[in-house]
Amino acid sequence: MSFSPLIRQMIDALRGLPGVGPKTAQRMALHLLERDRAAAAHLSSALDKAIAGVGYCRRCRTLSETELCAICTDPRRDPSLLCILQSPADVWAVEQAGGFNGRYFVLKGHLSPIDGMGPDEIGIPALLDCLDGSEVMEVILATNPTVEGEATAHYIASMLRPRGIKVSRIAHGVPLGGELEYIDGGTLAHALAGRTQIL
Amino acid sequence: MSFSPLIRQMIDALRGLPGVGPKTAQRMALHLLERDRAAAAHLSSALDKAIAGVGYCRRCRTLSETELCAICTDPRRDPSLLCILQSPADVWAVEQAGGFNGRYFVLKGHLSPIDGMGPDEIGIPALLDCLDGSEVMEVILATNPTVEGEATAHYIASMLRPRGIKVSRIAHGVPLGGELEYIDGGTLAHALAGRTQIL
Repeated sequence: MSFSPLIRQMIDALRGLPGVGPKTAQRMALHLLERDRAAAAHLSSALDKAIAGVGYCRRCRTLSETELCAICTDPRRDPSLLCILQSPADVWAVEQAGGFNGRYFVLKGHLSPIDGMGPDEIGIPALLDCLDGSEVMEVILATNPTVEGEATAHYIASMLRPRGIKVSRIAHGVPLGGELEYIDGGTLAHALAGRTQIL
Repeated sequence: MSFSPLIRQMIDALRGLPGVGPKTAQRMALHLLERDRAAAAHLSSALDKAIAGVGYCRRCRTLSETELCAICTDPRRDPSLLCILQSPADVWAVEQAGGFNGRYFVLKGHLSPIDGMGPDEIGIPALLDCLDGSEVMEVILATNPTVEGEATAHYIASMLRPRGIKVSRIAHGVPLGGELEYIDGGTLAHALAGRTQIL
């Protein structure tokens, strides 16, 4: 005997969550049905509300329930500083780290011609529109330190050069708490090349 | 800035799933909102349908969409053999292992007086009702090999003794693929005491 159809469908639907395989989905389904139907109902309603209510900020393109997100409408944010990132998750990460008081612009991923992701697909025209007539003085490129992220950063830098905007890239180097012995050569080379004078 | 309210609520609801912590819930929410809203809608609807449609089999008390589950209504199942388990997940596990062709009875957990789980709470009266006037000749006690599971098995055995039904307990011993060196003393003692003659 296998599962009854509704339970089977529930397990299949739970597998749509990232990182959830067949065993985990089965455990989740059983837990919800046997012990916590309220949590299942709560999850279902929260999903429906989020699907219906969460869109994208018209300006910075992060996930937002309102036309402009809370950061874009915050008057205490420095409008002369724009940080460019690859996804809304990166906005959350930078916000949680604290210390950045400018605004954001979120790309739809990174340049990857082999996957059909060109400048138009990742939102470069929208970025240029956003910069037109804005007060932005410096753009910080915070794409991921991967080959594609670097390529995207270089592409954006080349687009911004004619506009006379200052363009910077986040520092690459040894992460805090890391041990030199275990760090890859590329990162170490970056850390040496990007050394700062302390005395 | 933190998440907007709907995203916050979605993350909190995802944490209701077993084994999902704050970071995982955040990753799931972002994945669903950014990349797979169809999966989110599908999950929401599957949850609603399962909550509404899945109840318990009137006879064996496993999860079922119908009044009697597929096993209880299957005429090819041997009605003289009844396997007693602690949860619907155990039914699925035994079914997947194959080789058992009797029927089941699912307890609501195990005896645990400290948590207020007495014989009535785990469903002993329903089990006795189920046995009354049935064709059951042998009851197999397949509660978990834990202290509570053993206590539950012993309690049920003591209740069934006056009825003249044959009562057996699943074998405890060395699991297949296990190495003796790494197996606990209790299991090894059981394996030795329960040895079977092969020649």
